[in-house]
Amino acid sequence: MIRLQYAVELNYQVQGPGADFIFIIQAAHTRHQHVVNEQLGIGQTLMPQAFADPVTKTRYLRLQAPAGPLRVSYVATVDLAHHLMPSQAVGEVSVVQLPGNVLPYLYPSRYCESDRLLGFATQKFGHLLQGHDRVRAIRDWVQQHVTFKSNTSNSSTSACDTLASGQGVCRDFAHLMIALCRAINIPARFATALDYGADPALGPPDFHAYVEVFLGQRWYLFDPSGTAIPLGLVRIATSRDAADAAFATIFGTVWSEPPRVHIEAVANAQGERVLPRHTMDAISTDADGA
Amino acid sequence: MIRLQYAVELNYQVQGPGADFIFIIQAAHTRHQHVVNEQLGIGQTLMPQAFADPVTKTRYLRLQAPAGPLRVSYVATVDLAHHLMPSQAVGEVSVVQLPGNVLPYLYPSRYCESDRLLGFATQKFGHLLQGHDRVRAIRDWVQQHVTFKSNTSNSSTSACDTLASGQGVCRDFAHLMIALCRAINIPARFATALDYGADPALGPPDFHAYVEVFLGQRWYLFDPSGTAIPLGLVRIATSRDAADAAFATIFGTVWSEPPRVHIEAVANAQGERVLPRHTMDAISTDADGA
Amino acid sequence: MIRLQYAVELNYQVQGPGADFIFIIQAAHTRHQHVVNEQLGIGQTLMPQAFADPVTKTRYLRLQAPAGPLRVSYVATVDLAHHLMPSQAVGEVSVVQLPGNVLPYLYPSRYCESDRLLGFATQKFGHLLQGHDRVRAIRDWVQQHVTFKSNTSNSSTSACDTLASGQGVCRDFAHLMIALCRAINIPARFATALDYGADPALGPPDFHAYVEVFLGQRWYLFDPSGTAIPLGLVRIATSRDAADAAFATIFGTVWSEPPRVHIEAVANAQGERVLPRHTMDAISTDADGA
Amino acid sequence: MIRLQYAVELNYQVQGPGADFIFIIQAAHTRHQHVVNEQLGIGQTLMPQAFADPVTKTRYLRLQAPAGPLRVSYVATVDLAHHLMPSQAVGEVSVVQLPGNVLPYLYPSRYCESDRLLGFATQKFGHLLQGHDRVRAIRDWVQQHVTFKSNTSNSSTSACDTLASGQGVCRDFAHLMIALCRAINIPARFATALDYGADPALGPPDFHAYVEVFLGQRWYLFDPSGTAIPLGLVRIATSRDAADAAFATIFGTVWSEPPRVHIEAVANAQGERVLPRHTMDAISTDADGA
Repeated sequence: MIRLQYAVELNYQVQGPGADFIFIIQAAHTRHQHVVNEQLGIGQTLMPQAFADPVTKTRYLRLQAPAGPLRVSYVATVDLAHHLMPSQAVGEVSVVQLPGNVLPYLYPSRYCESDRLLGFATQKFGHLLQGHDRVRAIRDWVQQHVTFKSNTSNSSTSACDTLASGQGVCRDFAHLMIALCRAINIPARFATALDYGADPALGPPDFHAYVEVFLGQRWYLFDPSGTAIPLGLVRIATSRDAADAAFATIFGTVWSEPPRVHIEAVANAQGERVLPRHTMDAISTDADGA
Repeated sequence: MIRLQYAVELNYQVQGPGADFIFIIQAAHTRHQHVVNEQLGIGQTLMPQAFADPVTKTRYLRLQAPAGPLRVSYVATVDLAHHLMPSQAVGEVSVVQLPGNVLPYLYPSRYCESDRLLGFATQKFGHLLQGHDRVRAIRDWVQQHVTFKSNTSNSSTSACDTLASGQGVCRDFAHLMIALCRAINIPARFATALDYGADPALGPPDFHAYVEVFLGQRWYLFDPSGTAIPLGLVRIATSRDAADAAFATIFGTVWSEPPRVHIEAVANAQGERVLPRHTMDAISTDADGA
Repeated sequence: MIRLQYAVELNYQVQGPGADFIFIIQAAHTRHQHVVNEQLGIGQTLMPQAFADPVTKTRYLRLQAPAGPLRVSYVATVDLAHHLMPSQAVGEVSVVQLPGNVLPYLYPSRYCESDRLLGFATQKFGHLLQGHDRVRAIRDWVQQHVTFKSNTSNSSTSACDTLASGQGVCRDFAHLMIALCRAINIPARFATALDYGADPALGPPDFHAYVEVFLGQRWYLFDPSGTAIPLGLVRIATSRDAADAAFATIFGTVWSEPPRVHIEAVANAQGERVLPRHTMDAISTDADGA
Repeated sequence: MIRLQYAVELNYQVQGPGADFIFIIQAAHTRHQHVVNEQLGIGQTLMPQAFADPVTKTRYLRLQAPAGPLRVSYVATVDLAHHLMPSQAVGEVSVVQLPGNVLPYLYPSRYCESDRLLGFATQKFGHLLQGHDRVRAIRDWVQQHVTFKSNTSNSSTSACDTLASGQGVCRDFAHLMIALCRAINIPARFATALDYGADPALGPPDFHAYVEVFLGQRWYLFDPSGTAIPLGLVRIATSRDAADAAFATIFGTVWSEPPRVHIEAVANAQGERVLPRHTMDAISTDADGA
């Protein structure tokens, strides 16, 4: 059992008449991710409004802050026990057998224009044997095709843009992989995490974006940017794409500092400190279409 | 009480090894729309898979059809009793007070790039008094700005495209209005309906696309294309945008005939045949963020 | 010497107060294409305005037509004697050695967003040995990647769209190839022609779009759609892209019939009827950057 | 007679095997702009290749630089004597009466998708009385609609993007105005200048982008961003759009410093120092379609 502890600290200076915030920074409760304990700190006597999506389990925090400084901190200890399967044993699911709440992930979204990529995806991946290995082939192609490069994309960069530019950051890798999966009728969604074991050459620890794909009646995890150790990803949000998974959405005039993030492996219930390692198995984060 | 009866008939010729279908043609069960009776006919001994989204109440039908003809028919009798309010009495809801399941409708989607329209929307509508009347101003602007013209848009036309082209069909009017609302932080969603009272000059009866906006803790109905009588819209689907509200999504090689659609007002429980009329009131289709 | 004769007939019904037309239907005079004779017929006593671009040699015809029918016909007999070279002997030209009037073809244009395709092109073709063979590799990749399919693109479809969709008509093949060439600093331009020897399975004879690339101080001809016999292409226009090469641009309200086009090989000055054939050589249409 | 003197200094650090450059920094020779004297300095014994486009008069400098520092400096003294006309006296030119070399400016280009803006432009400006005043109305609308804001656009931002975002820098204002003009069949082109009298609040002096529109058989000057004194603009390049007017296009790996630019009014041939002032007249920079 891997036990990770992470901390997030966000600092803002709210201008004018105040501002509304939506934060998505809390660890999701899933079948394979257990939040052992957590603590939320808000540096004002503010009442945050909490909402957890019953299907995706993404947890939203909302608050209205007056002018002045705002500090939000969060610490969580999380146990990860992913479901592992040999890749070859994991098949695709026909559209009629998908759980109802998986259907939205078949359709195009803001940053994943799978409708426009239909021809490209069909030609490149349509003829491959169905199953987890086909999705791996998509991930591998994205990893080879796109070069990781900071500051090459922005908040309006979509999967089609990344296909053309051949460069981007983790979120762009994720969007392109998702769009290619959906284009050949495989449900795929965007996920954010804190990322134990990220390559320090890519800068300080930060929120990470990766992909979950629905196969064999479960969501399976893929890291198309290849910068994380998948077994060490603590899931925060899942969503159609980056449009609804930002760690902070701000309504008002606000000065923001970059988020401060920390993650480490700690001793688990058995007193052992287990480090996430790479595996050749398929890794599932959740079952039953949720 | 308005009672409407509508019928949909869909005809396909399935090729090759068969095909999967997702249909969204059934009337939604909402607080203000009661399905008195309905009948589904499938011209083969096929077992459709039914799923109703617990939040949006949109009803999905899925089936796997072998090669050969496929005929799907559906008839429903529906009672409509919309909630009416004076427009001035309906206010906007601050982000922190929105029901959790309304949050997705604040974000950009495939065809409603509210992120890209932020500047335009803020400049045109940001300074107006908040409330239902402001949303009406957006609807009126879209109606004046966009010219209804068949075959001027296609399946990849988005709100930004329509802003530039100034023309489109009902779905394009809806996308532009939705994107403008979201750009100034008003939750808005796409809705499809059968449309009693459409102008016959626009062609045979068809599925109609319109907009629902979340105001005063309810979803309120707007018809930016101005071609329908809002009180006569029988709601079928609500969704982020047209990407997930198509009456038929087809996976496989299939020849399709245009859908055949019929709608009429019939005698209600009191034996009266009440016709939908235009109203100056705000029309709500549903409460509680669902 | 190949001698081809082609005829174009255009029929319009001009509405309202009249309309302005720009036609580009006349055979270009180039070093390797000689117009033996030609005849222009306009079915009204209208004075067309003629202009030939001194650099591209594209010939524009303009006229102002009153309400009523307008018929434009054109017949030309053209001798073709292309300059042939072994592909390996044709190199690329460094930017500083390009003729000045070739520079515009290095830059992105409406339908050839080479700036957005920089990463993709560099990764796929940047490492190949420079020369005519590298450009052939681009042509081959486009030919394999894109599927010829009528009615899959429209007047706003660009190279990036075609990369994503993987389908299109000859103009889309041309735009994608041009954008990829420019992205790796090879000047490339759009060309239109009448097309002797087009595959009859693709429909009645029509205007054809192909590509010219500047190599070894000459423009070399490529047919990325693979539907023509390059030695049988009678050049009409060259331009940045389809934006400025339409056979007819119409300013006003006009009903148009599809153009009627005919082309055949006729006896040349020596009394022989030589048919265009495929060649493995590099084919140049013009020298000196014009 | 206004006499202005400007200086440009560009500093680069060329990496690896060297790089090719295209510079467009020299003052254009036009009928109303006379280059009294000029001096080009290149801090290496490099042979620049000069080319002046015979139609646009834009002057290209190309050179191939080895690894190491590269410094390019240019100083010019320029006399400006624009052609002024009362705005009401300047009419539009029908398509058939345009000089042949003006035709390219009727068509869409990379950053000015006039084809996509046809509906918008027609609806907003199609009904206005033709003439210079109509073009002024377009300029005024762009100026009111778009907010000047640094770092809100990038090298792929086009006219349609700016219409949606409502913000940008001078180049974005220019692209949107050009696209709107072309959409209603008025030839318009992009121009760059050094800009005497720019508002110091917008930062240090820099290259400026503005618009030239063909009216009354001349090119007339418009400054949609409203940040310059039009009579003090020293024209450098004209082009379809920013794609082919960059002051430096670089082929290779190069570190660049921001350009250093200086401009001042100096004593003219009569010994007077005349300062550019705003005028209500229409200002023409060139005649005869060139």
